[in-house]
This record gives sequence, C-alpha cells and structure tokens, in this order.
Amino acid sequence: MIIVFDLQASRRDIDHVVRRAASLRLKTHVSQQGGRTRVGLHGDLDGLDPSVFSGLPGVQDVRTLTRPFHLASREFKDEATHVHVGDEIVGGDRLVLMAGPCSVETRDQMMRVGSMVREAGATFIRGGAFKPRSSPYSFRGLAEEGLEILAEVREATGLLVVTEVMSPEQVGLVAGYADVFQIGARNMQNYALLDAVGKAGRPVLLKRGMSSTVEELLLSAEYILSHGNPDVILCERGIRTFETMTRNTLDINSVPLLHELTHLPVVVDPSHGTGKASLVPAVSRAAVAAGADGLLIEVHHDPSNAWSDGDQSITGEAFSKLVPQLMGIQRALTGTEPDPR
Amino acid sequence: MIIVFDLQASRRDIDHVVRRAASLRLKTHVSQQGGRTRVGLHGDLDGLDPSVFSGLPGVQDVRTLTRPFHLASREFKDEATHVHVGDEIVGGDRLVLMAGPCSVETRDQMMRVGSMVREAGATFIRGGAFKPRSSPYSFRGLAEEGLEILAEVREATGLLVVTEVMSPEQVGLVAGYADVFQIGARNMQNYALLDAVGKAGRPVLLKRGMSSTVEELLLSAEYILSHGNPDVILCERGIRTFETMTRNTLDINSVPLLHELTHLPVVVDPSHGTGKASLVPAVSRAAVAAGADGLLIEVHHDPSNAWSDGDQSITGEAFSKLVPQLMGIQRALTGTEPDPR
Amino acid sequence: MIIVFDLQASRRDIDHVVRRAASLRLKTHVSQQGGRTRVGLHGDLDGLDPSVFSGLPGVQDVRTLTRPFHLASREFKDEATHVHVGDEIVGGDRLVLMAGPCSVETRDQMMRVGSMVREAGATFIRGGAFKPRSSPYSFRGLAEEGLEILAEVREATGLLVVTEVMSPEQVGLVAGYADVFQIGARNMQNYALLDAVGKAGRPVLLKRGMSSTVEELLLSAEYILSHGNPDVILCERGIRTFETMTRNTLDINSVPLLHELTHLPVVVDPSHGTGKASLVPAVSRAAVAAGADGLLIEVHHDPSNAWSDGDQSITGEAFSKLVPQLMGIQRALTGTEPDPR
Amino acid sequence: MIIVFDLQASRRDIDHVVRRAASLRLKTHVSQQGGRTRVGLHGDLDGLDPSVFSGLPGVQDVRTLTRPFHLASREFKDEATHVHVGDEIVGGDRLVLMAGPCSVETRDQMMRVGSMVREAGATFIRGGAFKPRSSPYSFRGLAEEGLEILAEVREATGLLVVTEVMSPEQVGLVAGYADVFQIGARNMQNYALLDAVGKAGRPVLLKRGMSSTVEELLLSAEYILSHGNPDVILCERGIRTFETMTRNTLDINSVPLLHELTHLPVVVDPSHGTGKASLVPAVSRAAVAAGADGLLIEVHHDPSNAWSDGDQSITGEAFSKLVPQLMGIQRALTGTEPDPR
Repeated sequence: MIIVFDLQASRRDIDHVVRRAASLRLKTHVSQQGGRTRVGLHGDLDGLDPSVFSGLPGVQDVRTLTRPFHLASREFKDEATHVHVGDEIVGGDRLVLMAGPCSVETRDQMMRVGSMVREAGATFIRGGAFKPRSSPYSFRGLAEEGLEILAEVREATGLLVVTEVMSPEQVGLVAGYADVFQIGARNMQNYALLDAVGKAGRPVLLKRGMSSTVEELLLSAEYILSHGNPDVILCERGIRTFETMTRNTLDINSVPLLHELTHLPVVVDPSHGTGKASLVPAVSRAAVAAGADGLLIEVHHDPSNAWSDGDQSITGEAFSKLVPQLMGIQRALTGTEPDPR
Repeated sequence: MIIVFDLQASRRDIDHVVRRAASLRLKTHVSQQGGRTRVGLHGDLDGLDPSVFSGLPGVQDVRTLTRPFHLASREFKDEATHVHVGDEIVGGDRLVLMAGPCSVETRDQMMRVGSMVREAGATFIRGGAFKPRSSPYSFRGLAEEGLEILAEVREATGLLVVTEVMSPEQVGLVAGYADVFQIGARNMQNYALLDAVGKAGRPVLLKRGMSSTVEELLLSAEYILSHGNPDVILCERGIRTFETMTRNTLDINSVPLLHELTHLPVVVDPSHGTGKASLVPAVSRAAVAAGADGLLIEVHHDPSNAWSDGDQSITGEAFSKLVPQLMGIQRALTGTEPDPR
Repeated sequence: MIIVFDLQASRRDIDHVVRRAASLRLKTHVSQQGGRTRVGLHGDLDGLDPSVFSGLPGVQDVRTLTRPFHLASREFKDEATHVHVGDEIVGGDRLVLMAGPCSVETRDQMMRVGSMVREAGATFIRGGAFKPRSSPYSFRGLAEEGLEILAEVREATGLLVVTEVMSPEQVGLVAGYADVFQIGARNMQNYALLDAVGKAGRPVLLKRGMSSTVEELLLSAEYILSHGNPDVILCERGIRTFETMTRNTLDINSVPLLHELTHLPVVVDPSHGTGKASLVPAVSRAAVAAGADGLLIEVHHDPSNAWSDGDQSITGEAFSKLVPQLMGIQRALTGTEPDPR
Repeated sequence: MIIVFDLQASRRDIDHVVRRAASLRLKTHVSQQGGRTRVGLHGDLDGLDPSVFSGLPGVQDVRTLTRPFHLASREFKDEATHVHVGDEIVGGDRLVLMAGPCSVETRDQMMRVGSMVREAGATFIRGGAFKPRSSPYSFRGLAEEGLEILAEVREATGLLVVTEVMSPEQVGLVAGYADVFQIGARNMQNYALLDAVGKAGRPVLLKRGMSSTVEELLLSAEYILSHGNPDVILCERGIRTFETMTRNTLDINSVPLLHELTHLPVVVDPSHGTGKASLVPAVSRAAVAAGADGLLIEVHHDPSNAWSDGDQSITGEAFSKLVPQLMGIQRALTGTEPDPR
C-alpha cells in the first residue's frame, strides 16, 4: 500500500502516518517523487482497510499494490532508477558494457583483458575472485589476491569493478575492492546474503537464478531494497530448459517484461545465457535491440586456455568488432517512440 | 555420408555410386554445389566403411556427417537456402514480414488487416482457416471459407498467403489457396503430415514444437527435405518453460544457433513467443538484431475483439511504428563483418 | 453446464432441453447416472444464464462446470469408468499389465516375448507396427506386416493387442487388428487423429505429450469423448524436464491428480518415463502404489539387440520377478480406506 | 582416482602414497572397506598417469572414477551408508518418518503435532525456525525461540529434531538444538553454507534444488563429504517443470537412480513434491515402493490455519492412516530379490 501526500503535507502529517503504520506492525518506506512524499507500507497487509489512512491530514491518495514486490514495482516508482557508479550511470541513456574474464587468474591476464575491453568501450571490468563451482574440486578463485588484482586494474585503466560476493562474511572484504557487488545466480535466494548486501550501501548486480521466475527475481531485489539500498541492477543470464545445445536459454522476453514491471535497470549476460562464444555477438545485439541497459560479457585474451568458462568467452578482437554494432543498433532506436503499453 | 565428385566425373560415375548405395539399402540424394555433383547417403550408416566409395571412379571425397540431420545441415550444403515464393525470397538479404490475425474471422476483417500490414511493409498475410485448439469446444476455424477469403486478400493486395494445414487429407485443399504451408507447433512431429507436405512441392513454414529441441526441429525439417522438397522455412515461436508471466519463452539463442547448423532460413514469431502484445515490438527488434530472416507477427485491427489470441495481437498502428525500427536495425548491421565462428 | 433431471422426467422433457440447447448452438451429451438422465452442454457457454434451463419441466438441477474439460471430469461423472476390452477391464479392481517390445520386429520375436509376458501375468501385448521416429532415416516399423504378427500373437496366446495409430488414414487399417488404439505422445494434440479415433468406436490409450500439462491431456481426451467414444485410457509416460540422466521425468503426481480430476482409468509407462531398464522395476512399483490402474512396460527377450528402445526394455526374466512385487503392493493396499480428499 | 591397498599394506605404505599425492597438490581421503585401506585422490586429476601410484609398495589397484562426484559414488564406496542419529538409523532396513509442520508457530502447536506424529510412528519432528521466503515481507520464522520449542518437543516426546539452517553464521546456534541440519532447496548450491555444515560434524539432510540435476545434488553432497562429514541424507522434494496444477513435479525416478549412483540414504518430501495435501498419501506410498529410506512430511493439526504451507500439510489423522499403508508396502517388498542392475 502506498500513501501519497499532498504538496502541503507537513512533517507532522507524515510522522503521524508512520506511527499509525508502526502501531499496525507494518514497515514503512518514505520517499519523494515529483515533490510529493510517499510512504510505502509493507508487511501483513491482508484485510487492511485503506480508510485507516485515507482520511488522515495531508493524505491525498491511498493506493493498493497489485504485485507482491512493492519497492521494485513501477506502481511504487514510475521513473527509471539511475544507478550511479563512479562517473557511470546504469539505467540511463547510454548502454553500459561490463566485460572481462570469468575468473581472475593472474595480474598479467587481467591487465591484458582490462586494456582490451577498455579500448573497445567497456567501462566496467568483471572477473571472479570467489567462484561458485558445482564441484568442490574445481578452481574456486584467488580470493583476496584476486580482489587486489581487480583494484590494480581499476587503478591502471579507470575501469570500475564488478565482482561476486558469495557469503555474508565476505561482504566486508569485497566492499574494500568492488564498485558493484555481484550476486550470482545460485545465490539469488540466499536471503542472508541479500540482507547483508542490502545493508552494505553499495550497488548490487543481482543475477536471476537459473530457474527463477521474473517475479522471484523482483522479490529478491525487494530484499535488498527493503534495507534501504536503492541501487539494484537486475541481470538476465539465461534459464534452465530442456534444450541441451546451449548451456541456458536466454530469456529475451524478460528484458521488456522487466521494464514494464520495474524501474530498476536491466543488464543481460549473453555468455552464460548461451554458453557458446559463437552465439554471444548475435545475442548481445538482440539484448540491446530489446532494450537492455547494459551487457555483462565474458572476454578473455585466450579463451582456449581460460581457467573456467573458456567455451563461452569471446576474444578481445571479437568484442571490439561487436561494440560498434551495438552502438549502431542503439543509435537506430534512439528517438523512436516508445512502444505502446 | 556425402560423396563429392570431381569436376570431370561422368553421369556413369554418379550412377555407379547411386547403384552401389541402393545395393546397401541406402537412400541417395543427388545435388549440385559449385559445379560439382554430390550424393548424400542416408539410412542405416552404422559401421559403413567410407572406402566402399572412396576408390570409385570420379569420386573426389567421402565425408562423414556428424549430425543426425543431413540434408538440413551446413555440412551438407554451406550456402544459405533462398526460398522463392512469388517474387519474394525468404533467406536472402531482405527481412520478410508476415503479418495478420490469428484466425480468419470475416472477409471484412481480413481486408482491413491485409491493407494495414501491406501498407506498413509486410509481403505475406497470415491467418488460420484451420485452427488447432486445446479444447474441442473452441472455435476451430472457418475451413474452406477461410481459405477463400485469404485468396481474395491476395488478389486485392498482392500479399502472399501463409496458412496452416493440420492433416494429410487437408494438403490438397490448402494447396489450392496457400503460397506457403504452415505446420503448427503441435504438429512438428506429425510425421504423416510432414511426409505429405514433403511431397506437395510447395514451400513449408515449419514451427518448432513448444518443447522440441533445435535438433528435433531440424530432424522434422529433414522429413520434408528427404521427399525432395527443398523449400523449408524454420520458425522459432517460443518454448515451454517454468516462467508463467509469458505464454512461452522465446528462444533467441536458437536464431544464431540455427544459422550455424543449417542453411535453411529462420523466421521468428514474437506473438506466440511472448503471448503479450506489449512485449512483441521489443522482441521483434531482438529477433532482427539476432539475424532472423523474417518475422511472423499477429496483427489485428481490433485485438480486444479478436476471436482468438487477442492478448498477443498488436494493432495495425503498432505494427506500422515497428517496421521502420526493424529496418533501422537491419541497416545498422548491413555491411558489418560476420561473427567469427 | 450439466442439466440433471429428476427421476420422473419424461423423454419429452429431455428432448425439450436438447432442442433448446441446439437453438443456442450448443452441443449436447446425454447420459445416465444413478437412474437419472443428465444432459451435458458444451460449446460457447460464456454468459449463458442457468435459469434458461432451471425452470424447465423435469429439470432438477443445473450445474456449472469449473474445468475446461467436461465429459472427462469427475464433476460430470463421478464413478470410475471401466473400459472393457475383451474379457478385461481397465479401471476396475485388478491391475492390468500391458507388456511387449517397442517395435514389432519378427514373428519369432513377438511369439517369444508374447509367451513370456503372458506367463508372467500380462493380459495385453504391446508393440509398434507404425513407429514415430525423430529421424526419417530410422526404422519406421513393419506396417501391416507388423499388425498381422500382432494378430497371430493374440491368436496363439489370448493376449489383447494395443498398438499405435499415427494418422487418420491408418485408423481403418489398424482397426482390423488392434483391440486398443494407442495414440502416441507426439500425437496427443493431433486433432484430426483424435477426431478419427473418437469416431472409430474402439478403446483408445491416449499418451500424455512429453510437454503437455495434465489439463491438456484431459482436453485431448475430451476430443475423443465428444465424438461419443467413452473408452479412453489415459497414460502417463514422463515429461520433458532439464534432468538429463533419465530420458524423461515420470510425473508420479499425475496419477492421484488424474484420479481426482477424472473418472477415466490411468495407466503408467515406466519405460519411456525413465528411459533406463534398471529404473523400470522401482518406478513400476511406485506407479502401482500411487494408484495406477495398469502399466505399459517394454519387455524384450534380448534388449541389447532390440531394433529400438533397447536401453529401456527389461528382459522377460526381470518382468516375471517384478509382477509378484506389484501384486504384493496391490494386496497390501486393498481394503485400506481411500485418502481423504 | 582410488588407490586400493592390499591386506598386508603397512601404515608406511599408506603414508607414502598420501605424501606423493600431496606433492601433486591432490587432496586425499583415507577410508577402510572390507579390511582394506583405500585412499581417494581428489583435485585436478586431468592427465594424471595411474602408474605414478600403481607400482608403489602395498598398492593393489588404482581405479579411475567415471563420475565427477567421488566420495558420494558407489564406485568409491559400495555399501549403503547408515546415518546414525540418536538411536535411529537412516539408510538401514527400517523406513524413517520425519513429520511436522512447515514452520514452528507456537509451543502448543508443536506439542500437539509432535505427539500426534509420534503416536503414528514418526521418529523425527520437522519444523522451521528459520524460513526462507520469496518475499521479505512474509513470516520468516521464530528464530531461536523456535529452536527452543523444538528442543522441548524432543524432551517431551523423544522425537529427534531436523530443522533448517540458512547461513554459515547460524550453524553454531542451530547446532545447539538440532539433531540433523536441514539444507533447503534454495541453498543447495550455497557453498559457504555447505562448507560450514561439512565442518560441523553433525548429520545433514540436503534437499535437492528445485531445478538441480541429480548430478548437481551429488556434487553438493560432495562438498559436505569432502570436509570429512560422512553423514549426508539426500532429499528429493520435487523439481520445477511446466506443470502448474502441482507446485513441483516429484521426480520419482531419482529414488532408484540415486540408489544406483550413491551409497547415501535417500528421503522423499511429498509435501513440497506435490504442493497439495490430497496428493501426499499416494505419492508417499509411491516413494516407499520406489525404495525411499524415509519420508519428510508436513503435518499440521489444523492445516487451514497454518502460518505457511497449509495447502500441502496433511492432518494428524491423515498421517496416522497413511503410516500403516507405508508399512504394508515395505513388508510386501521385504525379502524380494533386488532389481537386476
């Protein structure tokens, strides 16, 4: 439920509503939109009568939300969220490119890949220092050493750092190095971790679980938002289906669907979405044409010798050929009218 | 297995190979590529020794195919197949737009929609006269009356007609009206029907089954090709997944994947692929950016009163806004280098 | 909608209702239950007011159905349907065993397998004379020769014959040999075929499509029932999921779910449901424990040399060990109270 | 790779192998089977030549494992693992019943349900004190208060306690109350948590992720086993498919499949596996008939007023009717020969 105040509402009017909500054991979330104050009410709303609030001083309107996610919904906030990271904006007019290897392997590798993708137009470097692996015997990442390498690449290239955090205990450590926390697909419903990054006050790139619905993705975003962290970037990375020729099935429908349902920016990962380097360029173009705010792409200077995900990593050369195509598509669509809803 | 002949091979050399194959109970398929004759061998090839053929006069090369589909594969035929329909080419440089309502309802409806989509740039009218419906109590199509209306629309507008055929007995009737037979998703593995359209000598638009793999789609195409009908257009129309906010999940990966595996053209149906009109424009743009040779889109002059599929039909107005965007994307990509394989 | 008449209703009362329904362009289906006549109304029922019928002479009750399938639903008919085939009853108290190879290969093979499964307790022989195969180059069955062999096995062993029919044209031919028509999973939504077997007046074993929902299965059954053929046996044979270690995922939930929703008997095919012979016995036991009315099992005298489906065929020996276990489970459950609904 | 020693091998021979393995940066796992010592080697085994070990003193055999999971495999350990919990054994001859509500709600509720299920034959009480919920606004459990209630129920009834732990930080706390840690489906690939319970030295019930393959489940078990904790109980609880009439699709195939692949016990959760109370009894019977070592069932004294999962909870009465049926099935199967592999 959203309480919208009129322009003349006083601080006291707002406090009154917040206290009334607290007496009903509801959480409140105060925000400003278009000069007006809004108070979102969350918790057990079953059977709550809107008239409890509609007659109070300063209250202009009481709206019932139709979706189980509140703060993430367009109903709650209509304007697109701009996530500011350094000088970059995710969710604005410019396509944001995040590129780099699956795993941080060596300083040399990261510097080479970093300068390649920087040159081609990326503004973020990706790379895992903590790697979730199905088998306990696989390479699980360089840990803090990997984070240090990422920070050096940032220093040398100006690229911003997005890297995965896998458990609540790592949040403090990773916060010392990363510009954006990445929550991996396997952890999309790791609620202790979502709570932790929700409190950490830094942008979060939240990957869709491989068999999570769009609604579940938004409910996981809601966990982060409900701790007061507004900077959530959603990431479509393919879902698990019966098709076996590709690693996952990239759900291209989810891009416009998410833009309808939520104000949060949407980034697409065509590398996990396909699992095959040869399909990455075409699917990247598709994502931009569908309205993605950015791409998260695995790029490696030598994919056949990558320590992980070599099959789905494209070369620096392929990446540099791809970027102008993506920009061309974006230019072709700029200035066109929005789709009728 | 493919037998490639040298440039000097005589008719007699070729006949020799064909007879030898027949004695081994194999089917043969003779074709020309780049001036050379090729004979494809199909059937039970397990344990067949290539040297049975490699020493014969005129034989230059004997190649083993790695995929279960043969005639449909790039290994068998590298150049893209151009399906000629009237003056149109599906699979060439130009994006082909096939548009129209789900069902043929009335003459007036079809004339209105036909002129709308013609105006906007479509060259094919779609519309079902025979409708496969989950329930026996739903509207099952106008049958021959619907086919007559489609023919009148062609007469009046010059649009080519693509329409569904649901059983072998209907093939003769539908052939009297349609330019392209459509095989619906539910019938992708209706082998009696595939055999029938394979023999009918007319282009076939073959829709992927809602839970069929890409390999199964190509094997179904192989049924048609193996009867000597080379004009198969593949259609990605979304697959069934756990996501419930959309009717299907459009498998955008399949577009570049099919282009890798087969020489046949690929058309995308964003209407069934999403099930929501509001998502159709974005997903159409994505399909073009991913390299689709054409689109099959449900357009209705009054979607809220459509007799079927109203939720996923866009208006004529939305379609006319979409076409220039699609053309813009195609232009932006024309002349760019192909993706590295 | 169902019109239930009172015990005194006359023929004339019933005719009156049928004519009134016809004037509203509704189909009617007259049946007897517990001495009372019922008329089911099918077609476009949107907005139909029950009071059109509730005041008519002889009408006791007018019920609205909540499911899209009518004749197949428990709402329409509460008592379990007994499908009589020869002296056998499918859907009664006794577990019915249908066993035999995937394909009819030779007379010798069928006689051997036939006597094995007969000995062990089966009352039906299964075996395909027409085989739906993904590839046009695979063995597609012996056709009429296969049907003749099946009839000879019946002659020799007394086993009843269940075999697949793949197209409307084959219905007449297959009717000359089979006791039960099998509709394969790929043809579950081949409506021309459903219409044809609906009119053929012989029991039909309808397999669930590999990605069809339970509701769609019942709607396909409705096609057959709506032509006046009441003898439909449903068959759960596994659905397509992401799991790759088994060929399909047998949906055990569907057995009690179907018993809740429909009066039609339910048979389980653990061979296609698992794709692995070693799993067939355990899953067969599970099916019986879940309440299946019968099993359809692939048995071959020499699975490693079977022409098709050898991996999922069990030996005659394994089958004879399994049957007493199945009987033991059934005995253990006989006389127990039904589950609370 | 497994190094099997001969009966005369000395401690020194074994140490020698362990040191050699360490020098190759491999992890080792020493165990006894049938009087012989075995050393399992884990880590990067690509290209490792077995002859490095086969000639060493005391070494009888060097075996290469064919599956990515090692310690969990039947190749590594053939005899079934018995997980001892108090006086109970999970994985032995007796069916183990774990029952109780979804969430711990109140002391009164837990005492009532506890005595009901105890009476009927359960030996474990289940109930969540920490609840993973899709929405941050749903009831998330009573936390430590819930654990205390569980301990009181154990005190009063003798039932053992199985309850969920959701993050590494909770492990210490939950260890103070639980007899068995439950890892929920959403956390099956929460590797930090698997590591933590692997080190905690207490039995773990590991639920299959809702879209995890059987192989991934076993790899997650491997995480726990590789920390030296041998007491892992696997739990099949249904997978996510396209079917919408049931909450999940219980994968009955997985029960015999897991018994083939692994020595670990397998428990089935028919409550989450179906999501419908009316289907729970039939699916429970199926699980036992398929060979499950135990069941984990949601039972509530008043399902329609349960704080969570009421739709899938059965009443105490239904549970007491079910147990004798389960025992009847087990008796019917006891003493029957094992299935041929």
